[in-house]
Amino acid sequence: MTNVAAHAASCTNVAFVNTLMPQPAKIATAPGCLTLDNTFSVSIAAYRDARLDAATERMLNRLSRLAAVPHHLAIQSGTSADLVIDVKGQGSVVPSLDDDESYVLNVTNDHARLEANTVVGAMRGMETFLQLVQANGGSGFAVPGVEIHDQPRFRWRGLMIDTGRHFEPVSVIERTLDGMAAVKLNVFHWHLTEDQGFRIESRRFPKLTGMGSDGLYYTQEQAREVIAYAAARGIRVVPEFDMPGHTTSWLVGYPELGSAPGPYEVQRTFGVHDAAFDPTRESTYKFLDEFIEEMADLFPDAYMHLGGDESNGKQWRANPEIERFMKEHNIATTQALQTYFSQRVEKLLEQHHKHMVGWDEVLQPNLPKDVVVQSWRGTHYLADAARQGNQGILSAPYYLDHMDSAAQVYLADPLPGGEQLTAEQANLVLGGELCMWGEHVVPRTIDSRIWPRAAAIAERFWSPASVNDVNDMYRRLGVMSLRLEAVGLTHISGPEAGLRQLAGSEDDGALRTLASVVQPVDFGQRYREQRTSQLTPMNLLVDSVRPDPPMRHELEMLVEGFLADSSHKKNRDELMAIFHQWVAAGPGLEAIANRSPLLADARPRAAELSVLGRMGLDAVSSLSAGKRRPAGWASRSLETLTRDKNHNGLVDFVVLGPLEKLVGAAGKVR
Amino acid sequence: MTNVAAHAASCTNVAFVNTLMPQPAKIATAPGCLTLDNTFSVSIAAYRDARLDAATERMLNRLSRLAAVPHHLAIQSGTSADLVIDVKGQGSVVPSLDDDESYVLNVTNDHARLEANTVVGAMRGMETFLQLVQANGGSGFAVPGVEIHDQPRFRWRGLMIDTGRHFEPVSVIERTLDGMAAVKLNVFHWHLTEDQGFRIESRRFPKLTGMGSDGLYYTQEQAREVIAYAAARGIRVVPEFDMPGHTTSWLVGYPELGSAPGPYEVQRTFGVHDAAFDPTRESTYKFLDEFIEEMADLFPDAYMHLGGDESNGKQWRANPEIERFMKEHNIATTQALQTYFSQRVEKLLEQHHKHMVGWDEVLQPNLPKDVVVQSWRGTHYLADAARQGNQGILSAPYYLDHMDSAAQVYLADPLPGGEQLTAEQANLVLGGELCMWGEHVVPRTIDSRIWPRAAAIAERFWSPASVNDVNDMYRRLGVMSLRLEAVGLTHISGPEAGLRQLAGSEDDGALRTLASVVQPVDFGQRYREQRTSQLTPMNLLVDSVRPDPPMRHELEMLVEGFLADSSHKKNRDELMAIFHQWVAAGPGLEAIANRSPLLADARPRAAELSVLGRMGLDAVSSLSAGKRRPAGWASRSLETLTRDKNHNGLVDFVVLGPLEKLVGAAGKVR
Repeated sequence: MTNVAAHAASCTNVAFVNTLMPQPAKIATAPGCLTLDNTFSVSIAAYRDARLDAATERMLNRLSRLAAVPHHLAIQSGTSADLVIDVKGQGSVVPSLDDDESYVLNVTNDHARLEANTVVGAMRGMETFLQLVQANGGSGFAVPGVEIHDQPRFRWRGLMIDTGRHFEPVSVIERTLDGMAAVKLNVFHWHLTEDQGFRIESRRFPKLTGMGSDGLYYTQEQAREVIAYAAARGIRVVPEFDMPGHTTSWLVGYPELGSAPGPYEVQRTFGVHDAAFDPTRESTYKFLDEFIEEMADLFPDAYMHLGGDESNGKQWRANPEIERFMKEHNIATTQALQTYFSQRVEKLLEQHHKHMVGWDEVLQPNLPKDVVVQSWRGTHYLADAARQGNQGILSAPYYLDHMDSAAQVYLADPLPGGEQLTAEQANLVLGGELCMWGEHVVPRTIDSRIWPRAAAIAERFWSPASVNDVNDMYRRLGVMSLRLEAVGLTHISGPEAGLRQLAGSEDDGALRTLASVVQPVDFGQRYREQRTSQLTPMNLLVDSVRPDPPMRHELEMLVEGFLADSSHKKNRDELMAIFHQWVAAGPGLEAIANRSPLLADARPRAAELSVLGRMGLDAVSSLSAGKRRPAGWASRSLETLTRDKNHNGLVDFVVLGPLEKLVGAAGKVR
Repeated sequence: MTNVAAHAASCTNVAFVNTLMPQPAKIATAPGCLTLDNTFSVSIAAYRDARLDAATERMLNRLSRLAAVPHHLAIQSGTSADLVIDVKGQGSVVPSLDDDESYVLNVTNDHARLEANTVVGAMRGMETFLQLVQANGGSGFAVPGVEIHDQPRFRWRGLMIDTGRHFEPVSVIERTLDGMAAVKLNVFHWHLTEDQGFRIESRRFPKLTGMGSDGLYYTQEQAREVIAYAAARGIRVVPEFDMPGHTTSWLVGYPELGSAPGPYEVQRTFGVHDAAFDPTRESTYKFLDEFIEEMADLFPDAYMHLGGDESNGKQWRANPEIERFMKEHNIATTQALQTYFSQRVEKLLEQHHKHMVGWDEVLQPNLPKDVVVQSWRGTHYLADAARQGNQGILSAPYYLDHMDSAAQVYLADPLPGGEQLTAEQANLVLGGELCMWGEHVVPRTIDSRIWPRAAAIAERFWSPASVNDVNDMYRRLGVMSLRLEAVGLTHISGPEAGLRQLAGSEDDGALRTLASVVQPVDFGQRYREQRTSQLTPMNLLVDSVRPDPPMRHELEMLVEGFLADSSHKKNRDELMAIFHQWVAAGPGLEAIANRSPLLADARPRAAELSVLGRMGLDAVSSLSAGKRRPAGWASRSLETLTRDKNHNGLVDFVVLGPLEKLVGAAGKVR
């Protein structure tokens, strides 16, 4: 009475195709393979607990959808199942920096065995197991024979989300955690307070959210839910309470913490604001002591982030009491005053048994060794921290709102070769963190800003440094992107839905074609051109296009292949088809743009698409036929491309580089 | 420092295009219009409470995204804003059958006024206001001048979701409630218990979910969250506890309630099962009394549904004690025994101050007048109930898993003309309910099974009976479908994501083309062909195609237009483009299907698509040119179409009718 699919023949001949991301430390093929069908069984051999059971169930649910094994499979005990999970012990229950995440996965002769020292290690191996599923002929699935020995290169592999500038509901956080687990990221850095919003309930200080959040905040119960959700996936949650700057939202309800008299309002604009805690009053530390005590109790992780970035000192300089305090205490600069503040709050954290993390501004000569420095301004801060004996994590290259392509950031290493660090110093570099700042992201757009690029960076954090082939990364990233969609992320479907809304119709093919070749401009350009604020609706074309869309790298590869051998028919045909599609989209795009007020700013890009398409067609036919273009064609085309590069507007073409190469080559045909 | 869009010129000239769904009772155009831009303001004039404020904020959030008015707009008091909301009083706080849902909406000369007697009435009007937003030239938005007087035709406009056979998480329920509110449905009928799962926490009887739910159930806290979410949208929540049949999941933990000794297991298979409560033991009623007391406390609605369907009486006949009881009490048939049971449980409901709803099997001559009959087997049960003095709601035509097109069900009326009812009897027909049974839907597929078809049926329940133009309904349904996506439903994006997963690639255009012309077979055919059960993964092509896809009606219209005037170039060109696309999809489809084991059963449909495309091309060119096809072409083509109609498989072509017409006409060209 169950599913009717017959048991497939024994698995003998499935060739391993490596689509794993991140790449494991060591992998070798092995004889045999494991058939996945409706007789599939799983057992837990040794140590077993609720967290391992739940992780195994989640894996089975995904396997069911992926490979058609039945739902509601019971997890057996013992060692006779198709997949045996053998874990030595629970490891730490609260995920920790010292977690042993290693695992060994063997698949051979219709059996698979996953061994790990800890439950978290087993979870990492389960993700790899799911990634190994392949088609087994036309009608079934299998896992090929492999022997994998895996562990991470860095212990701290994080993603920061700024929920202060735009609130992200729990559902967004949870699907992000699912994506993180799928690519073996292990730290969720939760940026909870900003000038524009205070997002975590404090029961001791209810006016923090009561007056500073627009009603958009996480209850403590929700925070506990998120922490448990993360822990179930072996992910740490490090909360950040940014101070002494970026604190306007605190001051709305508690102006007595501020360095100016107030009153304060929730900031709607972005950028660096003047509001700052008053570091000279004992009452500030008393407040923070109580607040940190409450939060230390809520967040079980051993680390707490206290920000420390972009405090401009203006309110301090303007306050005579603070000036007097600085003179009395021989504090010469506002920077030194911030160091004084950092040392005071670090002591508070110590009392509440937390290690402090701070942005690289906290790095001063007398910084306690206990403090972890998160570098957002450059790699050298990390090296400086290490030389000073402080641990560090790198974020500078991994700012998602810079809209860099995966290729641009993939090779950026937390341990850069240029810095001469001793082995001991290098060991202080704990890893890295991607940063998703919140100015321009809302729940329906945040996924495409993070994914799939985060998967490429996760590989940098997990895999050996020697894994650095960009083209192979893109090949696997395309597969990984769909896996991330299957765990619930909306980085593909969200932008598609946005395009439909803009087009006002399901018949939006022309707009999709445009969207396939543009990406959002970086944070700074959008901010300057649109004067964005928290009041700006995020509903334009820029909000429904993806950073580093697949066409960018695809076209680069096609052009490279075609220029290497312009008689290669397949590359030529594919290029022609792409350029034809751009030309063909013209009339449809015009019609959509004319009826859609929200597309007003995108009209120049839309008009340009056909021009680029014709340019591509001209270049390819010229090169294929060895026929020269009319005089001036190349220079005129290059001018067009230069103009397109230096345009104003909210979206950038991502295909100008390959077109330039094509035009350059076609211009040389004589 | 806010958004930079300039204030548009005063609104003077926006022509009303009616895309409202459901259509209001009365609508007239009025002079002037209201500009929507960054100076837009809203005020509440008279009665004001938290529920009205929250509803207004939700409207403003949607307006911000739709029409680029700023986020975080403050709601003013008084009557000087652009949109003034004027409500007389709160109405009932727990939404009720007697709610006054009427409203009046006037837009004229740069002002809009929404008047209602109750908060719920105002909510209905806000949905209409949002639907009125139009482009105002190329760069702005406006609401055209209108005068709308609106109220519903039927008081009970429901949607039932079966969460027993497949569990649907709270997030699915909540987005469904948002969709319901958008189309003015007002009853969420929550089918909570089934043979396959018991989905609501009982604190008195914890083994109900402890043993009968696979851990998939709603906590009471979640149920309260859903009830509050619904109430905030003016939607009643009517829980259903189906009995005496469909009760296996109760009996797993409490076998003493059953008519056979047990033990019982959660049913994995679908269909009518034998398990039934023992209606002859007082202990059964004692249990139900306590259970109903607990649930009556949890669910505030005045109505509670106790099922009553598909009890086959087999366990009763097989139990000598029950046979003896029937003899002793002169109960001749198992049907009469069920009536005895119904009367007993109806008394329990009365004691707990609830009215009973039951499926039409409960309709017996001595049914208490208090009971509402929900007809799932046919319209005449409703008429019978009315003649007997019982209220009724119609569901028979509105079974979403029958996969009928919106056109097929749109004209089905809760008050059918054929039945001769007095005015008083007709008044007993409260309305209707769509039914979404759970056998074949899971969270990622349920939306496309419900939407957008439910919007068409919602119009039947709300709008005057005279609103019955199918083509106009489809014109508006296309717009409504995108509005439903904007409120968070995934009926378009979900299937698209599913197709990508099946194709294993974002480059899935060929599969999308196939998906545009097929729909799922109905419940019965899928059940028979696939022998589905709760263990079946719902991950095939059938799970990622949509009932009544837009192409169905579109092609019908195009063919109709073309056959009426085959020299009409636009129709011909559009038809040719569609058929060309089918032909062109051939190679890509073959490649995708060959590498995707989950598409194995869809391969015959995939192969057929090009054949249909060529047939269409042949027919159109023959008709355009007045050139006859070779002998036998028409009869061979019709044979092909007949074969395609009578196929086996899980998806049906929805384009065979129009193709048949084309072939028929082309066959007559001499």
